[in-house]
Amino acid sequence: MSELEQAFHDLVIANRILAHQSVVDAYGHVSMRHPTNPERFLLSRSRSPELVEERDIMEFTLDGKVVGDDRRPPYLERFIHGGIYEARPDVNGVVHSHAEETLPFGISETPLKAVIHVASSIGATVPVWDISEKFGDNTNLLVVNQEQGRDLAKRIAQGRVALMRGHGFAAAGATIQDVVRLSVYLPVNARVMSAAMSMGKFKPLASGELESRGHFNPKAPESFRAWEYWARRAGVGHLLGAMP
Amino acid sequence: MSELEQAFHDLVIANRILAHQSVVDAYGHVSMRHPTNPERFLLSRSRSPELVEERDIMEFTLDGKVVGDDRRPPYLERFIHGGIYEARPDVNGVVHSHAEETLPFGISETPLKAVIHVASSIGATVPVWDISEKFGDNTNLLVVNQEQGRDLAKRIAQGRVALMRGHGFAAAGATIQDVVRLSVYLPVNARVMSAAMSMGKFKPLASGELESRGHFNPKAPESFRAWEYWARRAGVGHLLGAMP
Amino acid sequence: MSELEQAFHDLVIANRILAHQSVVDAYGHVSMRHPTNPERFLLSRSRSPELVEERDIMEFTLDGKVVGDDRRPPYLERFIHGGIYEARPDVNGVVHSHAEETLPFGISETPLKAVIHVASSIGATVPVWDISEKFGDNTNLLVVNQEQGRDLAKRIAQGRVALMRGHGFAAAGATIQDVVRLSVYLPVNARVMSAAMSMGKFKPLASGELESRGHFNPKAPESFRAWEYWARRAGVGHLLGAMP
Amino acid sequence: MSELEQAFHDLVIANRILAHQSVVDAYGHVSMRHPTNPERFLLSRSRSPELVEERDIMEFTLDGKVVGDDRRPPYLERFIHGGIYEARPDVNGVVHSHAEETLPFGISETPLKAVIHVASSIGATVPVWDISEKFGDNTNLLVVNQEQGRDLAKRIAQGRVALMRGHGFAAAGATIQDVVRLSVYLPVNARVMSAAMSMGKFKPLASGELESRGHFNPKAPESFRAWEYWARRAGVGHLLGAMP
Repeated sequence: MSELEQAFHDLVIANRILAHQSVVDAYGHVSMRHPTNPERFLLSRSRSPELVEERDIMEFTLDGKVVGDDRRPPYLERFIHGGIYEARPDVNGVVHSHAEETLPFGISETPLKAVIHVASSIGATVPVWDISEKFGDNTNLLVVNQEQGRDLAKRIAQGRVALMRGHGFAAAGATIQDVVRLSVYLPVNARVMSAAMSMGKFKPLASGELESRGHFNPKAPESFRAWEYWARRAGVGHLLGAMP
Repeated sequence: MSELEQAFHDLVIANRILAHQSVVDAYGHVSMRHPTNPERFLLSRSRSPELVEERDIMEFTLDGKVVGDDRRPPYLERFIHGGIYEARPDVNGVVHSHAEETLPFGISETPLKAVIHVASSIGATVPVWDISEKFGDNTNLLVVNQEQGRDLAKRIAQGRVALMRGHGFAAAGATIQDVVRLSVYLPVNARVMSAAMSMGKFKPLASGELESRGHFNPKAPESFRAWEYWARRAGVGHLLGAMP
Repeated sequence: MSELEQAFHDLVIANRILAHQSVVDAYGHVSMRHPTNPERFLLSRSRSPELVEERDIMEFTLDGKVVGDDRRPPYLERFIHGGIYEARPDVNGVVHSHAEETLPFGISETPLKAVIHVASSIGATVPVWDISEKFGDNTNLLVVNQEQGRDLAKRIAQGRVALMRGHGFAAAGATIQDVVRLSVYLPVNARVMSAAMSMGKFKPLASGELESRGHFNPKAPESFRAWEYWARRAGVGHLLGAMP
Repeated sequence: MSELEQAFHDLVIANRILAHQSVVDAYGHVSMRHPTNPERFLLSRSRSPELVEERDIMEFTLDGKVVGDDRRPPYLERFIHGGIYEARPDVNGVVHSHAEETLPFGISETPLKAVIHVASSIGATVPVWDISEKFGDNTNLLVVNQEQGRDLAKRIAQGRVALMRGHGFAAAGATIQDVVRLSVYLPVNARVMSAAMSMGKFKPLASGELESRGHFNPKAPESFRAWEYWARRAGVGHLLGAMP
């Protein structure tokens, strides 16, 4: 199988995992940087992630323009993806989600912190991007042009994720497996922190622990273990590539 | 397919989506204004929404009287629907639900506010209708006559939804797709606001944001995207009309 | 079908509904008074409610003795059922459950009140039975003899339900449909009250409203509607009797 | 069937139950002491519990070394199991889990107490093991060598379970059925205590009650009842041994 064919498989798997794990519903989307052309990214046409198939995948330039004469309606918020890929050459997968558990932290003054080891990659504190800071109170909160996508990417900076006030989150990963994993555990971390707060003081991960967790290795057995598990539960085990 | 045939399909889809999304259980119901006779509305016989089929649909005048000699037992609370259609010519779909997440706000002094963009149509603050204000403490809380239906509609006024104290909510939409969508995201908004409140101060949507979200366009790809997704998950994808 | 045959069907349906609605898991049980001999009651052998079939049903005298030479192990806590049937000739169905949502109220000083109309039959305030009040701190919390069953029944008094501290609840109904319905909505009421409390003051049902809800009519279309719905979801629709 | 064959069946059942009950996801694992050689334990290769089959089971010495020339990647954290088996000859089953409901108590100053009778075996107060106490702030929180496993086992002491700060819990049982049961009800107990706390004062189980609950008898009908139920729900009823 060619690298591009496996990329298409992986992007379908990512869509289905995120839907099955309730990270996305009819809304939210996941993209990957084109495996052989870093100036492009791959993203489904405007479709619910649970229904996405290979033939739904479209190709975009980093400023969100459709490549070729593909006339199918794209997601309005494809600029979230383009903005991040443009700013961060190290990023190869992006997720945008409205995951419910993260929303309270996006509208609250309480910062979301990493409190469990499976979510260590979110960093000590997750920044919040409020579209009204730069674009005023009269937007519909959606990221509908490259300027807004760039501003959001700036808030992520060298991190992995930003909450979007009243809207959801945008996350970035070295690989698509990496960003899917972060997107699954970010809501869990949010629920755990909320529950711990309601009982009083709590202890977030120490900075040494955040660093020691180090960089995600998608080829490690424990990484593939989760990707395989989530894919099988989501009914797309047959699209998995060879076991590393 | 005729307009009326598609209306019957859409009403069955709406019932199944609301059941599958846990907005209704054995109780709660959804109606639509008759597509060619605005003085009538369509609503299932007294049946759990998950089990509703086309042949269960009955026709009512706006004051809740059964049209024709249909002897099947109707819902006791059909006056919720009639009262709203009578007062609001712009409304073509109505939902009544006991959705658990909205109930705390109906009995609390804390007003429910729109905090997430997908629920912007509920308005800045959702009014609460307490049946005892006008009808005293000796009702069984049900809306069982047109006078009560009209009083509830008055509380909704030019808005989209009212909570019903100790009971649930009633929502109105320009189309049946519109009111189903609101009914799916209203409970999510309620959960998010509860969770944010428990952490301290929170920021609801700004009034400019509420206005900018503007009017729901059921023909937009992103609207059909959700309707299609929810219908397929609920097992009634085969009843969907042509893709817009 | 004879009255006894329908009783067996109804008892299987009740077991499956309670399991499917997560009111019981491996533990918890439901019984009915024998339809033609009020001095007996019917209850499964020691088996998880989701797995109960007609042939698992055993017959007991009101003091918890097995009728006939049935040697299969009965539930240890059959005395919950016997104690209530003995004290309350008006009761024909009993449920014992560990439903998680009710447990916090059983160990808390906060009394559980009826706050939603579908749970009005629980009464203004649900009493708590603490086994240690009469039987000391050295029990295993289980109701394992008729004396304990009678003491629990006394706490229910003329009501419908009592919470059991650190353990669950016991509920009584005029019919098996009635007590199943109460057992489904009691946990919902508990969650709603918890959530409302966390936001501040809340308004429970008024005493006039509790009375106006009146007596449950299992033959009304809106009662059968729920029984049918829950039975079909639990996969035992084929055991339903004729539609009233 | 030989004792070893039934052990393999039981270990697969345990994996599937824990996955199906959401005690583990892609991570977490369950082991059993070898039924005929107490110096060995059985544990799956690095695989998600929901996918574990008999052929995935590997054999280890108590210091976590693979027996034989099995080259398949083991779980990194097998030392949790070895550490406990080494310290506690009475223990024959061990579970490690990230169960979300227990995590808040692992990072909070609020101790987790037994509040419901089905969780009485966790003891009056569950100790918390914080890896940084002995191993500093620069670990990745994982238990990756025998020294760490031994330190964790020391925190469990003569008890049944310890929470692991920012990570999950480790539990020990006289049999695999025993530790699975504890692992299912520990999260329930945690949720109930959290909810009760949010309403004010609450009453944990009394020490006499903890003692009276006594030792778990896996051969009692009420023990097999749960094991059978959970196994059937998880789709592995065919692996169950003969009914006691």
